[in-house]
Formats: sequence, C-alpha cells, structure tokens
Amino acid sequence: MISSREEVTKMILSAKVMKGIKWSQVTAATGLSKEWSTAACLGQMTLDKSQAEAVGRLFDLSDEAVAWLQIVPYKGSLPTAVPTDPLIYRWYEMVNVYGTTIKELIHEEFGDGIMSAIDFKMDIQRQADPNGDRVNVLLSGKYLPYKTY
Amino acid sequence: MISSREEVTKMILSAKVMKGIKWSQVTAATGLSKEWSTAACLGQMTLDKSQAEAVGRLFDLSDEAVAWLQIVPYKGSLPTAVPTDPLIYRWYEMVNVYGTTIKELIHEEFGDGIMSAIDFKMDIQRQADPNGDRVNVLLSGKYLPYKTY
Amino acid sequence: MISSREEVTKMILSAKVMKGIKWSQVTAATGLSKEWSTAACLGQMTLDKSQAEAVGRLFDLSDEAVAWLQIVPYKGSLPTAVPTDPLIYRWYEMVNVYGTTIKELIHEEFGDGIMSAIDFKMDIQRQADPNGDRVNVLLSGKYLPYKTY
Amino acid sequence: MISSREEVTKMILSAKVMKGIKWSQVTAATGLSKEWSTAACLGQMTLDKSQAEAVGRLFDLSDEAVAWLQIVPYKGSLPTAVPTDPLIYRWYEMVNVYGTTIKELIHEEFGDGIMSAIDFKMDIQRQADPNGDRVNVLLSGKYLPYKTY
Amino acid sequence: MISSREEVTKMILSAKVMKGIKWSQVTAATGLSKEWSTAACLGQMTLDKSQAEAVGRLFDLSDEAVAWLQIVPYKGSLPTAVPTDPLIYRWYEMVNVYGTTIKELIHEEFGDGIMSAIDFKMDIQRQADPNGDRVNVLLSGKYLPYKTY
Amino acid sequence: MISSREEVTKMILSAKVMKGIKWSQVTAATGLSKEWSTAACLGQMTLDKSQAEAVGRLFDLSDEAVAWLQIVPYKGSLPTAVPTDPLIYRWYEMVNVYGTTIKELIHEEFGDGIMSAIDFKMDIQRQADPNGDRVNVLLSGKYLPYKTY
Amino acid sequence: MISSREEVTKMILSAKVMKGIKWSQVTAATGLSKEWSTAACLGQMTLDKSQAEAVGRLFDLSDEAVAWLQIVPYKGSLPTAVPTDPLIYRWYEMVNVYGTTIKELIHEEFGDGIMSAIDFKMDIQRQADPNGDRVNVLLSGKYLPYKTY
Amino acid sequence: MISSREEVTKMILSAKVMKGIKWSQVTAATGLSKEWSTAACLGQMTLDKSQAEAVGRLFDLSDEAVAWLQIVPYKGSLPTAVPTDPLIYRWYEMVNVYGTTIKELIHEEFGDGIMSAIDFKMDIQRQADPNGDRVNVLLSGKYLPYKTY
Amino acid sequence: MISSREEVTKMILSAKVMKGIKWSQVTAATGLSKEWSTAACLGQMTLDKSQAEAVGRLFDLSDEAVAWLQIVPYKGSLPTAVPTDPLIYRWYEMVNVYGTTIKELIHEEFGDGIMSAIDFKMDIQRQADPNGDRVNVLLSGKYLPYKTY
Amino acid sequence: MISSREEVTKMILSAKVMKGIKWSQVTAATGLSKEWSTAACLGQMTLDKSQAEAVGRLFDLSDEAVAWLQIVPYKGSLPTAVPTDPLIYRWYEMVNVYGTTIKELIHEEFGDGIMSAIDFKMDIQRQADPNGDRVNVLLSGKYLPYKTY
Repeated sequence: MISSREEVTKMILSAKVMKGIKWSQVTAATGLSKEWSTAACLGQMTLDKSQAEAVGRLFDLSDEAVAWLQIVPYKGSLPTAVPTDPLIYRWYEMVNVYGTTIKELIHEEFGDGIMSAIDFKMDIQRQADPNGDRVNVLLSGKYLPYKTY
Repeated sequence: MISSREEVTKMILSAKVMKGIKWSQVTAATGLSKEWSTAACLGQMTLDKSQAEAVGRLFDLSDEAVAWLQIVPYKGSLPTAVPTDPLIYRWYEMVNVYGTTIKELIHEEFGDGIMSAIDFKMDIQRQADPNGDRVNVLLSGKYLPYKTY
Repeated sequence: MISSREEVTKMILSAKVMKGIKWSQVTAATGLSKEWSTAACLGQMTLDKSQAEAVGRLFDLSDEAVAWLQIVPYKGSLPTAVPTDPLIYRWYEMVNVYGTTIKELIHEEFGDGIMSAIDFKMDIQRQADPNGDRVNVLLSGKYLPYKTY
Repeated sequence: MISSREEVTKMILSAKVMKGIKWSQVTAATGLSKEWSTAACLGQMTLDKSQAEAVGRLFDLSDEAVAWLQIVPYKGSLPTAVPTDPLIYRWYEMVNVYGTTIKELIHEEFGDGIMSAIDFKMDIQRQADPNGDRVNVLLSGKYLPYKTY
Repeated sequence: MISSREEVTKMILSAKVMKGIKWSQVTAATGLSKEWSTAACLGQMTLDKSQAEAVGRLFDLSDEAVAWLQIVPYKGSLPTAVPTDPLIYRWYEMVNVYGTTIKELIHEEFGDGIMSAIDFKMDIQRQADPNGDRVNVLLSGKYLPYKTY
Repeated sequence: MISSREEVTKMILSAKVMKGIKWSQVTAATGLSKEWSTAACLGQMTLDKSQAEAVGRLFDLSDEAVAWLQIVPYKGSLPTAVPTDPLIYRWYEMVNVYGTTIKELIHEEFGDGIMSAIDFKMDIQRQADPNGDRVNVLLSGKYLPYKTY
Repeated sequence: MISSREEVTKMILSAKVMKGIKWSQVTAATGLSKEWSTAACLGQMTLDKSQAEAVGRLFDLSDEAVAWLQIVPYKGSLPTAVPTDPLIYRWYEMVNVYGTTIKELIHEEFGDGIMSAIDFKMDIQRQADPNGDRVNVLLSGKYLPYKTY
Repeated sequence: MISSREEVTKMILSAKVMKGIKWSQVTAATGLSKEWSTAACLGQMTLDKSQAEAVGRLFDLSDEAVAWLQIVPYKGSLPTAVPTDPLIYRWYEMVNVYGTTIKELIHEEFGDGIMSAIDFKMDIQRQADPNGDRVNVLLSGKYLPYKTY
Repeated sequence: MISSREEVTKMILSAKVMKGIKWSQVTAATGLSKEWSTAACLGQMTLDKSQAEAVGRLFDLSDEAVAWLQIVPYKGSLPTAVPTDPLIYRWYEMVNVYGTTIKELIHEEFGDGIMSAIDFKMDIQRQADPNGDRVNVLLSGKYLPYKTY
Repeated sequence: MISSREEVTKMILSAKVMKGIKWSQVTAATGLSKEWSTAACLGQMTLDKSQAEAVGRLFDLSDEAVAWLQIVPYKGSLPTAVPTDPLIYRWYEMVNVYGTTIKELIHEEFGDGIMSAIDFKMDIQRQADPNGDRVNVLLSGKYLPYKTY
C-alpha cells in the first residue's frame, strides 16, 4: 500500500542508484526538458498517463506507483525552511542577498506584480570558461500584474 | 552618528522617493550593471571610492554615509527566513520546489560541488510575449568542485 | 525623512483615529473597491498618482508620504507567521484545516496549477440572518496551470 | 491496530489512487457538500455512522477504520506552519497580505468580533472566463461579537 | 501622534504606576467586570465612548488616546509564542498538559465543536484555604458545534 | 517491547475506538475525576497499581502496558508549540489574549507569585443555556508566593 | 515617562557602570541574599517599599523608577529561547543533557511532581580548589506532588 | 542491527519497566554516582567496558548494545528547545529568570569566564522539611577564565 | 531497498561499533585524510568507485550501499539548527561569538568576499601541553572575492 | 546614558568609519592579538583598564563608554540563529557539514570530552597561493574531558 507520493520518490531514487540510471535518460523517455522531468520524478510535478508509464518502465515501478505519478503532489522538496545542503543553500543565499534588488528592478520595469513561479521555465546549462566552467541558469516567468478592482 | 549600513540604505531609499530617482540612473552613475549597483545601494555590496561618491552625489548623502558605502556590509536583505513579500516569495518557492532538481542536474553534469553565489552574475531582462511579457533572468555562477584531500 | 512605507501606514492609522475617518470614505475618494483601497492604505498595494493624492487629501498627508504611496511596498501585513489576533487567526485556521481539501478539489476540477493571489479579487459582504448575521466573502482568483516544458 | 485518524486518511488516499475514485463520488455517497465530505476524508471532520459506512464502502475500509471516521479528529492538515505547497501557500499569502484589511473591514461593518471558522461554509466553483477560467470561492461564517461582561 | 494601541497601553501602565491606581478602580469606573476592563486597558478589548472616557479620566489620557481605546485592537498580549513569565507559563503548561484531555471530554459531552473564546467570560476569585489560599478561575464559553453542509 | 508511554497511549486510543469505551467508564473504573483519569490515559498522569490495573482491564492491555501506566511520563500532549486543533487553539488564544490580564489581577490580589499548575484541579461542566449550551470550566490552583531570601 | 520595568533595569545597569557599584553593595543595602537582590535589580523580582527605596538611593533612581521596582515584573531575562551567552548557555546545556536524568531521579525519590522554581532558593559560592577554583551552586526547591482528584 | 545510541536508551527504558529496576540499582552496579550513571543509561555519558557490562547484565542487553554504551553519544536529552515536561521546564525557567543574575554574580566574583558543564558534578538530595520536603541540588563546575592572547 | 544516503550512514555506524573499526582504519583504506574520509562515511562527501569499494570491504556493505556512497549526498549532519551536543555546540558558539570578528579581519585583509567552505581543508591535531593537551585545528579555505559586474 | 555594551560597539563602529581606523591599529594600541582585540571592540570580550583606555583614546570614546568596555558583556554577535551573511554562513556550514566528523575524530583521539571555546585561541592568516590566496585559520582549544563521579 502506497499512501504518499514521497514513497514513490524514494522508489525512484532507490532504483536510480541500483540501475545506474541518468536523469538524461528520463528526459529521453518522457520527451520533456530535463528540469521538468527531474522535478516530476522528485515528486514536484504531475505526469500524464504516457509520461508516467515511460517513467515506470525506466525505473521498473509497480502499477500503483505509476498511478501515484499522475496525482498532483504536495509540493516542497526541502526538509528545512533554510536548506542545509551547500549547493541548495547558495540559491537561498542568492534570494536572501539579492531579494530586494530583484524586487526593485522588476517593479521599476513592470510596476507592481510578480514573476510567476507557475508559468515558469528553467534551463540549466554548462558554460565552458578558461577560469573554470560556469553553471548558467535561465529562469523565465510570466509577469503577472496586480490590478486595481 | 551613523552606526550601521542599514541606516545608509534607509537614507538612500528616502532620497530615492523624494527625488524620484530611478535605479537606471544609479547604473549610469556607477557604470556598473543595474543588478550590482542596486544591490550595493540596498546594503549588500561594497562600493569603491569613486562609485560611492557617485552614489553620494546622486542621493545627496553626507560624507559619513559615503564612507559607510565603502565598508563591507553584513549581508542579508530579508526580514524573515521565509520572505512574506509575494514577488520575493516566488523565488523562495522556486528554490523550495526545484531545489532537489537543481542539485541533481548540476551534480549529474559536474560532479560534487556547488554553483558559486560569490563568483556570480545576474541579468534581469524583459521579454516581450503576446501571451503576456515575461521576466527572464540569467544567473551565472562559477562551478566550484569539492576535492578530496 | 520617511524611509519606509510602514511609516506612512502609521501616519494613516493615526490620522484615521484622530479624524474619525471610515474606510468607506477612502473607497469613495479613490473610486476603487473597499478591499483594495483599504489594503493600499495598510501598505499592501500601490496607488497611482491621483489615487495617492486623494488619499493624501483625506488623511492630510505630506507630499513625501503621498510619494511613498506610489512606491511598490514590501508586502506582508502580519507581525508573526501564525497570527495572534483572533479574527485573523480564524482565517489562518481555515487554511490549516481546509488546506488539503481546497488543494484536492481545485486539482480535481482544474488539474495541476494554482488559484492566483495576484490576479485576485475579494469582496466582503454582510448577510442578514435570523440566526445571527454572517460575513460572506467571495474570493476570485484566476486559475494558473502548470505546464510541461 | 489503528491508533490515529491520520492512518485512516492514508488508507483513504491510497485506495483513492488505486481505485481511481473522485471526490465527487464521495459527495454522492455521503449526500453532503464536496468541501465538507472531502475535509472529512482528509481527517478534518467527523462523520456520523451512516456517512462513515458510505465512505467505508466506497474506499473498502475495515470496520475499525469506519469506527475511527466517527471519532472527532485532532485537526490541522498542514505539515508546516507556513505551507510549502504553492496552491496552499497562495491562501496563506492572501491571509498575510490582506489580513489587516479583512480585520479592518469586518470591524467597520460589525464592530469587535470575529467571523466564525466553526459555523462556517465554503463553496468552491469554476467560473468560465475568456481570459482564463477562475476559481471562485464563497466563504460564509457567522459573525460572533465580543460582548462586555 | 499615536500610531498604535500598544502606545496607549504603555501610557496606561505608566500612569498606573505613577498614580498608584488599582485595577479595581478601573472596574468601578467602567462598571464592567475586572477581567474585561483590565483586558481592555491592556489593549485586548474595545471600549465604547463612555467607558473610554471613564478610563481616560482615571489615567489622565489625551483625547487622542481616548479615541484609540474605541478602536478594535490587534489582539495578542504576549511577546513570545511560549510565554516566559512563570505565572502565564503555568497557564500555557495547563493547555499543553491537559489540552488533549479537554478536547476529549468536551467532544464526549457535546460532539464535534469548540468552546468559544469570543462568547466567553472569565471570573478570577480568591478562595481561602487553610493549606494555602487558592486562585479559582471560572471560564465559561458557548459551545459552538461544527455542522455538516 | 514497549519503550515509551506514548505507545501505551496509542494502545488505549486504539482500544477505545474498537470497543466503543467512554471516558466516563474510565472514571467509573478508577474512582477518580473524569479530568484526571482521562489525562492519565492520555499519557499525562501517573496511575497507582490498582488504578493502572483497572484501566488495563477496561482496555485489555498487556502487563507491560499496565506497568508503564505506573511510570511518571514525559508530559506535554501537543505536537506543536502553537496548537493547530481549533478546540485546543481557543485555549491557547485565551492565554494569549488574557495572559497579561490574568497576571495583573492575580498579582493585585495576591502579590508576586503564581497559580500552581501542579496543586491544581479542573472541572469541566455543561451548562444548559437557551442561547446555546455553554462549557463551564473551573480551574483551581494553589497560590504560591515568591518569597525573599 | 517610564512604561516598562525593562527601562528601570537599564537605568540600574547604566548607573552601576558609571558609579562602579558592586552587587554586594546592593545586598548590603537590601539586607537580602545576593542572588535575590541581583535578580530584583535585573527586573525579575518585586521589591517592597523599603527595599526599593534602598535600591533607589544606591543607584540614584527617580521616584517613578522606585515605584516601578515595587510592581511585579513580566519575568524572563534572556533575549532568545536558547541563550547565546556562553556562561548562561552552559546552564541551558546542563538542563538539556541532564534534564531526563534530573527527572528520573526526582521521580524515583519523590514520585510524580516537580521541584518548585517559586518556593526556591539559590546560593552561589566560590570553592577554592588546587586544580582551579570551582563555582558551587546550591539550588533548593520545595517538592510539589501531583495528587489525584 | 543497532544504528544509534537512542535505540539502546529505549531498550534500557523498556527493560527497566518490565523488570522493575531502580536507578539506585544501576548506581550499585556501576559504583558511580546516581546522577552520572543515570545520565549514562539515558544516552548522555560514555561507559567504560566494565561499567557497560554491569549495565548490560542488569538490563539483560545484547553484546551489540553493550558495545554502543562505550561509544560517545550525540548528547542532548530533550525533544524540544523549550522543554514541555513540567519538572524539566522548572529548570529551564530557573535559567530564564535567573540567567542574567547567575552571570552577574559569577563575573563579579571570578571575572570573565564560565562555570564548566564538562568538569562538572551534580548531587540531588532530599531534605526533610516540616513545610514540605525539598529537593536540594548541588551543582559544582570548575571556573574557566577567558584569557587574553 | 535503500532509498537515502542516511541509511548507508547508519549501516556504517552500526558496523563500526560491532566490528570495533577506527576512523584511522578508514583513512588507511581510502588513502585520504582522516577528516575527508570520516565526513564521507558520515554522509557528507562523495566517494569514487575505488574509495567506495574500500569502505564497503571495511564495513562489509552490500553492493547497493557501495553504489550509494558514490552518489552526491544531501549534506548537513546536524539534527537541529543550533546543535545540542556539547562538543559541536562549542564550534557553533565560536561562530556566534567570533563571527563578526572573523568577518572584519578577513575583509580588512582581503576586501569583500568569503573564505570558501568548498575549496576547503581541515586538519585536526593533538598538541601535547603540560597544562592539558589541546585540540589544534587548521582550517584552510580559498579566498573568493566578490567582483563588480 | 549608556545602558548596554551594544551601544558602545555601535560607537566604535561609527568612529571607525569616520576616522578610517584599521583593526590592526587597535591591535597595536592594546598589544594583544588582532583576533582578541577585534572581538573585544565588537562587544564579545572584556578589556582591562589600560586596554579600555587605549581603545577609548583611539576611537575618542567617553569615560562612560570606556567604563563599559571593562564590564563582561552578554556575548553572541549574530542577529539570527542561522547567520545570513555569506562569509559567516560558510563557517556555520562548516560546522553543519563537518560537525559529526569533528566530533568523531576528537573522541577517537581523546575520548569523551570537548574542545574548549573558552581556553581558546584563534589565528587568522593569509596564505599566498598561485591558485588564489587562501585564508588559513588556526583554532586551538584545550581538551576538557568528561570524568565519571
């Protein structure tokens, strides 16, 4: 009996290590971006039937697990409000240090509103650099204005 | 008597509203990117002498305030660990929902290490879109590997 | 010198008590809904020039305060993560008790996505009732779907 | 041995995915609103005997589980004080941004008191809209006045 | 300029010490119970005009302060979620140790619902006792049932 | 193997639902007040041998469980510092709103000291009322003075 | 205008440094133990009239400040739940490491109950020791039993 | 497989209840003080081989558990930063109320430094008293001075 | 099925106690420093294939566990934000007490930037001392400057 | 009137910026290490009379401020439990990631005990390195063993 999506995430992580599967293989199987399909496997996005079945075949999941992949999960992938993992913490730090800057510049350009985290895309790329390669990340979110009513 | 950088930030914010200054004017004055110079005015980065004097002239700051702009600040721009402001929260949410995904993909590409938040650049752009304009943000951080010793 | 929107909110609250102004008068002055214009006076929304001037006249604010009303504020109106005020706590309780129910029903109807708190309207009404009058609140938020990419 | 209502909630969620049951089917089985009956299945409300048996038949629950559905649960459906799930967070944000506004407007209309979260109803509806469908939610709570004594 | 009820509470506390006023005198002045009138002076309840004026005369408050006493306050009298003061902590402990007991016994007697903290009265009395006097407190709150809908 | 009192509490709660036992039956079995004996069953008080055996017979507990009932438990019945359950929260709210009032009135009557939560009794009663029945609770705690030394 | 006991504590600390007063002088002035009279000066205990006047003469306090010393304070002397000061932290650590031990041993000796922190005395002494002098502290609290009712 | 000292603590607590063992018997078995040997059984101190074997014989532990008793544990015996158990809370309260007093008096006597919680002894005794027996606790910690360097 | 690195850490700790393995043996097996190889065994660093196999042979781990040792872990080894264990707390205290000092001195020497915790080495040594041996720790981290852009 | 050491720290920081003083000048004035004298100026250590006077002359402090420098401060230099400043956070991260490693290695070498943060020295040095200069920090703390009693 599976009673939460988190259990399916654990099954996927376990199978991934056992079988030596790469996230790029998941991308190939689903035909979606590596960011979205990895997030889905980690319990943050909802797969449709054919995507879920492709993931199920790759990780050798039960029908019940495949059914769970099609259910909207309770999102949030971090165990603490301030993340302890150094890689993820650097992103939290970026939000903490640059948060008010991001806010000022978006408001100066667009007025009052937000950059959506729902109508949103992320693309992570390696950039070769003689001083040490860089991680380049493009975030793209629809601007949503507050309106008066 | 000024005893913290935060007081200088308040002076800048106050003058900005009174004089109707735009962040783009700060950028022009310092000759640096809008992201970096805004962050500096908001108390997150350290200006050199000529940058500080340019900012001082623009906002009509005292010599003491200009001196403080050249002191490395205690960083962190948010009043709570989880930000309450909707625009900034969406970024926190992005880290929370995609945090483990970002971690997995960077590790798959680069191995164990982090994306630096120090050797780091940010570029915020407006992208016109018939379905509603988008905020595009390019983050670029040097990859720093953990090594054995 | 005013260095934060919060100071303007305090000026408005102080003037409101001294002059005995009602929120309905603010609504009349701005021509907007009572919910939106009250939120703006409490430091959560951004007024345009003519709205800010109308509010300024009503509460007898300085030009500097009127200028601040046109600046996008750092939002969040509550001093603690879990509100202590009984009226506001009942709303927090509603989110806590019904949160997973709301999630399930919106997902069943719409799929994976959210109800926007930005493209959002609120209308608070009194409903006469022989068993005791009721507070009726209509919340209306655009559905925003997660899409694959 | 079942020793908490939470275990019954997990059984229901597990059966729901396995059998592909919809919340609307639960509504039909209990004859109650979709909001109330979903909340009951998620461990927030108390069912009477016939309602519990109807739910038990639908999800194929043991007699013990059906007995638990008739016990008043320890309420609260969220794992953290500030919810991480984006859909539920938007509601928390609404309370955070509009909290003082809601308080001011209810007090202006009714005086000191609260909007009950116990003598309370919720109705979630889809509203078709050419700019994108909307989630409309009607909240109705009895006004309860503080009295002097 | 007074911009919060908390400032009025401080004025009352200051005057109380300077003038040696007793809470029982406040009770006499307002004609209300000592519990309710003390809570009002401490910023938790709303006075009507004549009550506020009586309190104002007793503590020699300005007209502005008297006006604030008639405004519904943001409630919550404790500086931390878990109170540090030993007398108040004992009450928190009572809720912590007996919380589930209170819940079980009220539900066994009344069914699902709550004991109101709004339609509520408190009466604190001294009971002489040869083993040491006792503080007796009678709490009386209307039972409010959850109903199905 | 039982390694904590909490496990015994779970056994009691499980048996209570399975067998349909009422707390009033526990009271009859132990010969103690309903408040004290319920608290004991919920893991907050220590039973003597005959009381523990009576409880054991009623809930059909093992000898090991009966032995645990005679061990002083680690007290505290709530999973979070601020309780999420609406019934229990109302009590927390009462302490939060009335905390400083209770403190002032006890000190005015008794001087510096506390109302004991150890030499303490609680009696919960139903009071019929045409406007809706009330929950009346009498709390009685010995006054304990701070003394100089 | 003094509106809290904390302000009086600050006045005492300021005068203590300016005048080079020792706590032992406070003890001599009040005729009480050094522990109790220091705690009183630090805002944790209530002085009677003659004690307050003695303290007032020593620190050259205003009549208003002397009046405040006779008011029961809101107790709790530490700014954070877990103290950051190393000397005080060691005491917190002692409670954290030995907490369950203290509990077990007192219960084994006395049964269910507590060691009072109200009917309580503390005596701090220096003990000469060739391996380095020791701080010896005697804590003495009345045992208060839980009783059945 | 045992993977943490906490599991061994649970085994000891379970055996203690089953066999009706007293802490004084542990003291007799180890030849150490009751405070230290109880703390060791509760997972806070490290036993040497013969002490561990004595404890193992008393509680009938496996060789693996006896091995774990000789491993330095991760210390800290309380489940929350502020303890909920009334007996242990009184100690936390003592630190909270008297914390700054303890700090002032030790510094006045010894200068800047701390009272060690490592080179530390605790002795808990019952003191007969006609007004009710008292718990007397002697704490003795080496004074450790901060030195300049 | 292993679904997290934490389970492997537990296996290693369990085997270490059962077999009486020393960390210095792990160092010998991997050929790396004792600090790095211990951190890796405790779930904080990533081993390559031959290192993982060496660790696996030493602790007699399954192939699956050896595979997990080669996966980048979610880092962070402490169960609470403020560590309760006295040895680890002293380090937290050092950061808390000396944090601003470290910041000032590094900035005075290097300008704005950080000392890396990624390009980082640690060496823990025993230094014999007639006044009591000392723990000497050398931390070495690359200086990473903030640059303007 | 100065009522806390924190105010003196602010005076020093303010004067430092105004006068362009370096920490190395403080070191020269006091004749102590740069680490200790900086920590003292930042409110963490206690100066003796001649050290305080030297610091007072350098920063042009009042006699009252110089008196405060000789008073043992309430220590702890960080505004939040988890530091937000990136430089200081890296140290917190080091404790978080390596905490259990440090614990294991010190215990393996020394047995149960701690590395003192009181009998403690810190030396921060720049190490030239062609790959980028490094910050080297030597921490030296006396080992303090737990003993049985």
